[in-house]
Amino acid sequence: MNALPDLAAIEAMDEADRLRPMRDRFVVPEGLIYLDGNSLGAASPAAFAELQRAAAQEWGQDLIRSWNKAGWFDMPIQLGDRIGRLIGAAPGQTVVCDTTSINIYKALHAAMGLRPGRSVIVAEASSFPTDLYVAEGVASTRPDAVLRLEGVDAPDIEELIDETVAVVLVNHVNYKSGALRDMAALTNKAQDAGALVVWDLCHTAGALPVDLDGAKADFAVGCTYKYLNGGPGSPAFIYVATRHLGEARQPLSGWWGHARPFAFEQRYAADAGIRRFQCGTQPVLSLRALKGALDIWDEVDMAAVRAKSMALTDLFIQLVEAKCGSHGLRLESPRDGTRRGSQVSFEHPHAYEVMQALIERGVIGDFRAPSTMRFGFTPLYIGFKDVWRAVEIMEEILRSGAWKDERFAVRAAVT
Amino acid sequence: MNALPDLAAIEAMDEADRLRPMRDRFVVPEGLIYLDGNSLGAASPAAFAELQRAAAQEWGQDLIRSWNKAGWFDMPIQLGDRIGRLIGAAPGQTVVCDTTSINIYKALHAAMGLRPGRSVIVAEASSFPTDLYVAEGVASTRPDAVLRLEGVDAPDIEELIDETVAVVLVNHVNYKSGALRDMAALTNKAQDAGALVVWDLCHTAGALPVDLDGAKADFAVGCTYKYLNGGPGSPAFIYVATRHLGEARQPLSGWWGHARPFAFEQRYAADAGIRRFQCGTQPVLSLRALKGALDIWDEVDMAAVRAKSMALTDLFIQLVEAKCGSHGLRLESPRDGTRRGSQVSFEHPHAYEVMQALIERGVIGDFRAPSTMRFGFTPLYIGFKDVWRAVEIMEEILRSGAWKDERFAVRAAVT
Repeated sequence: MNALPDLAAIEAMDEADRLRPMRDRFVVPEGLIYLDGNSLGAASPAAFAELQRAAAQEWGQDLIRSWNKAGWFDMPIQLGDRIGRLIGAAPGQTVVCDTTSINIYKALHAAMGLRPGRSVIVAEASSFPTDLYVAEGVASTRPDAVLRLEGVDAPDIEELIDETVAVVLVNHVNYKSGALRDMAALTNKAQDAGALVVWDLCHTAGALPVDLDGAKADFAVGCTYKYLNGGPGSPAFIYVATRHLGEARQPLSGWWGHARPFAFEQRYAADAGIRRFQCGTQPVLSLRALKGALDIWDEVDMAAVRAKSMALTDLFIQLVEAKCGSHGLRLESPRDGTRRGSQVSFEHPHAYEVMQALIERGVIGDFRAPSTMRFGFTPLYIGFKDVWRAVEIMEEILRSGAWKDERFAVRAAVT
Repeated sequence: MNALPDLAAIEAMDEADRLRPMRDRFVVPEGLIYLDGNSLGAASPAAFAELQRAAAQEWGQDLIRSWNKAGWFDMPIQLGDRIGRLIGAAPGQTVVCDTTSINIYKALHAAMGLRPGRSVIVAEASSFPTDLYVAEGVASTRPDAVLRLEGVDAPDIEELIDETVAVVLVNHVNYKSGALRDMAALTNKAQDAGALVVWDLCHTAGALPVDLDGAKADFAVGCTYKYLNGGPGSPAFIYVATRHLGEARQPLSGWWGHARPFAFEQRYAADAGIRRFQCGTQPVLSLRALKGALDIWDEVDMAAVRAKSMALTDLFIQLVEAKCGSHGLRLESPRDGTRRGSQVSFEHPHAYEVMQALIERGVIGDFRAPSTMRFGFTPLYIGFKDVWRAVEIMEEILRSGAWKDERFAVRAAVT
């Protein structure tokens, strides 16, 4: 480990940071250290400008004509390809639509349809819960389906993969611990057994380089409102490898997935390409904020993002352990930066209360039950001095016992 | 039929119109006669203001805290109840989420689950196609399911309803002809046979009074970007009668439908109420534009909307037939206003070209293959003089043959 840097050394890191000018492209509220961009990414003037144009001119003045004139109809495909560049997907395989949960449903059904005679879905007990809930939903429509869970049926997901498995649903980065899986290795292992893999990229798209095509991935889904900064609840994406597009069917067969949506035919005929994974009309205003955010991403090199992300998270771990180590914190994330996403989690017996005290003092992270404090580091708008200040404030809270204030004992419904 | 009104008589109708002040609450582009609010409703300063606040303050400044502080999380339920007032649904039965297509999928699955041992889905060949495509998708996940279509298997939907039918999926107002069904009578007929009904309200919500609870309806779905003016692609709604909520299950079982979404439990447990019909995170910005639009609806009496709607559509039919009747137009909508939604459709052998010529002259309706010109009348921002002017322009196009211009012969992909 390096010697503990002092404030001067940290200011020098910010000076040398080539991504630092990107911070000016975002709305960074005064006095806030926002370490929750892994839950909701920051706003940007670019997103606001797109939203304003879409609302005032395209909706307000051009009305229905904007489906053609402003390209509303093709936005899901065009934005999909732009996200594709960030996740290693060649054009024509990614579309922005619906929600991550709904896209998982489509991908699992499609994968099971491609593996007739196999009935097992493998997932992770440690997954973000919606993945498991949706897998249950898919199983409810397929009486033969069986769900096997890493952490319940075996400690390691690889032990669960055999010739009965149709599909493996797996998170690239765990939402809670930040642990990063080896995409190419697990994909290869599953495919060797004849299974398909659905990668959940919610915590990797925009956080680190992903190479879906290089890993020979089958399916992927992900969200656009975290590291991609698309705005609250901006639509999700789904990736389907070109080699599967001809045969992959999904049951949410709405008119946007039809080969000829405006011919108003009586029977469904799936589009030949990725459009078949669309279903109904998409929320244009929310899509336009995402478009503004992706205009910024077009200028960004993911390798630079990854390098800074590892430096920020390494620094955070080093400072927290040096300054707060005596207060019962335990690192929950991998210590090795190459095995970690762009977040750091610490366990603490009073994680909820400590996080509330942090938030009151302007350090925004989040709490995950039962005892995790989670801090996300978004290299486009978080700097090294933000890390320093966050740790200073955390140290003060833990040393003074400020988190014991009774206000922090009452839990809100949503955190 | 009344004597043909002249311009003075029509101006007097506008003077006497008690809904006329509502026009000022909308953005009505200069020089446009917008008869396509049944496809995309008009924008409003109220929607823009909500959008601006949600983007600049709640996303930009308050960030993740807005899920609680700005009530983002409960918006789907709150907006659902406000739409409920317009469709005769007592609170707790309606939620705004996802798309109409996806909500049809949920409703059909839930209905079939409530009728084990029955395998028939009845729908209409004349339906907006996505309803049929989604019914096919549901059938693809239920090997026993059979689809019976009015217009294919029998001329009248009532003949298709027997003790093998699990669910009838039916449009309240036909998207193309504007024909309005008797909701109470058909619901009663289906329920007498032990079947359930899913009502598609896309062309009635905000167009005329609906009384779901009064009709003892089972399920309903609908869109919010037509008569409700929620903005392009604003999320749809789904209604489930209270008596079904305990047992109705749908397979898109994402975390927003969980009884305790923030407990991050490993197993799905459906919420006891209408929240179980939610799936994943909703597009907040698009929802907020809808909220602005519903603020206007809160002041509106649906009976007044219906009265003006019938007067507008009656006048349009009368004027078109009197002034353009010699040019091959044929009324496709019911002549009886009580059996018609808030739109009027005319067939013409060159409907596409005539509509293009109308659009070029600022009269915006739409074309539906193969030969329908469709005109929507939205009483909140369309007046009687708009009807007069639209017919004057149509008469000029038909009389002069201006629609024969070669520019109008090229069909755009989306209309």
